[in-house]
Amino acid sequence: MHRVKVRVVEDALDANNTIARANRMEFDRHAVTVVNLMSAPGSGKTTLLERTLGHWDDGPRIGVLEGDVAGSLDADRLAHHHIPVVQLNTDNGFGGECHLDANMVASAMDALPLDDIDILIVENVGNLVCPAEFRIGEDARIMVASVAEGDDKPLKYPLMFRACELVVINKIDLLEHVDFEMDQFLHHIDAVHPGVASLQVSARTGEGVDGLRTWLTELPARVNASAAV
Amino acid sequence: MHRVKVRVVEDALDANNTIARANRMEFDRHAVTVVNLMSAPGSGKTTLLERTLGHWDDGPRIGVLEGDVAGSLDADRLAHHHIPVVQLNTDNGFGGECHLDANMVASAMDALPLDDIDILIVENVGNLVCPAEFRIGEDARIMVASVAEGDDKPLKYPLMFRACELVVINKIDLLEHVDFEMDQFLHHIDAVHPGVASLQVSARTGEGVDGLRTWLTELPARVNASAAV
Repeated sequence: MHRVKVRVVEDALDANNTIARANRMEFDRHAVTVVNLMSAPGSGKTTLLERTLGHWDDGPRIGVLEGDVAGSLDADRLAHHHIPVVQLNTDNGFGGECHLDANMVASAMDALPLDDIDILIVENVGNLVCPAEFRIGEDARIMVASVAEGDDKPLKYPLMFRACELVVINKIDLLEHVDFEMDQFLHHIDAVHPGVASLQVSARTGEGVDGLRTWLTELPARVNASAAV
Repeated sequence: MHRVKVRVVEDALDANNTIARANRMEFDRHAVTVVNLMSAPGSGKTTLLERTLGHWDDGPRIGVLEGDVAGSLDADRLAHHHIPVVQLNTDNGFGGECHLDANMVASAMDALPLDDIDILIVENVGNLVCPAEFRIGEDARIMVASVAEGDDKPLKYPLMFRACELVVINKIDLLEHVDFEMDQFLHHIDAVHPGVASLQVSARTGEGVDGLRTWLTELPARVNASAAV
């Protein structure tokens, strides 16, 4: 059973990569830089987006594609901030996909006002395993880890930490109330993904969020520079 | 692509259920009651087990099967408490399975001292989606939700909350530091799974952990009573 399952999954990943490349070409045609935003459930992705994108009048034009198993709670929250948001639910099928795939993102393409967007942020389903395995046509990947989850997570979910260009360490306002050693965590990140960038923020208080704004603002130029190499 | 994927998954679930039934018969033969313990990453499953099982001298004989994508950090922590622990890693294959399945549990069966165990707790991979879809031969399912994850989780991951017999609400020591309305959360649980039992605990301080000990102690009789119906 195991051997078959692995082969099926590899075929699915091949098909996924083909569609992801097509997505990427379409995004490029509209000069949209795409970020795949991933984390465990409850790490604070949506609150981080609200805090980062709300009242950011001089920033790039941002759009959000919201991935959830069920409901539109997060999309509704973001819509309050006058950000173009499209909701994708993964719960048709067998009880809910645990990740977005390239085909789901392709299905939302027509609903996105791509010519009015500089950076599209795709908020993935909360999960530290499968989202890292499925490219969706993104230029960069951010993972959010909350200090409430503990400092051992890079060792337990190494692929996720290895697959991203930026680790946002969220909920630092809780540091004094949880068993989390920042030095240990940074050490573990560095062990699984040497040199990866990280930011320490509190989406709740706003501390450190300017660093994410800077990172996003500089992203399109960085992506273009690396594409030109 | 989507249609094929769903069919493949349904076939996999059928095969899984067949093996899960065989696991269940084997556990029954040794009079072992099995609990599938599930949560998002970092909800505190291992700390909860350490707090509940450590120094519980008059309790049932507990064994633990530790499921992780990679590493044996959690198993090592539990082994310190002189609890029989077997580690299962899911990272052979394509980058890590996001859940345990019945076949993986079957592969660990011989390593477990079943005749010395009354209750086997299987700590699943941290994930709020797929573990709820794959039975492993368990008698009961507990899900752990941390208040740091937010009170909207039952609406976003309904299958997980629907699939369990007990919701353990962990990290209540953080309640005054996070945006989490207990009434809202209980209301959301009740909306997706009317009448499901819940406990409020802090694995960090030990508050409420006696309730989980009582629940576990009474579980074998409860399982036997429902099997006799």
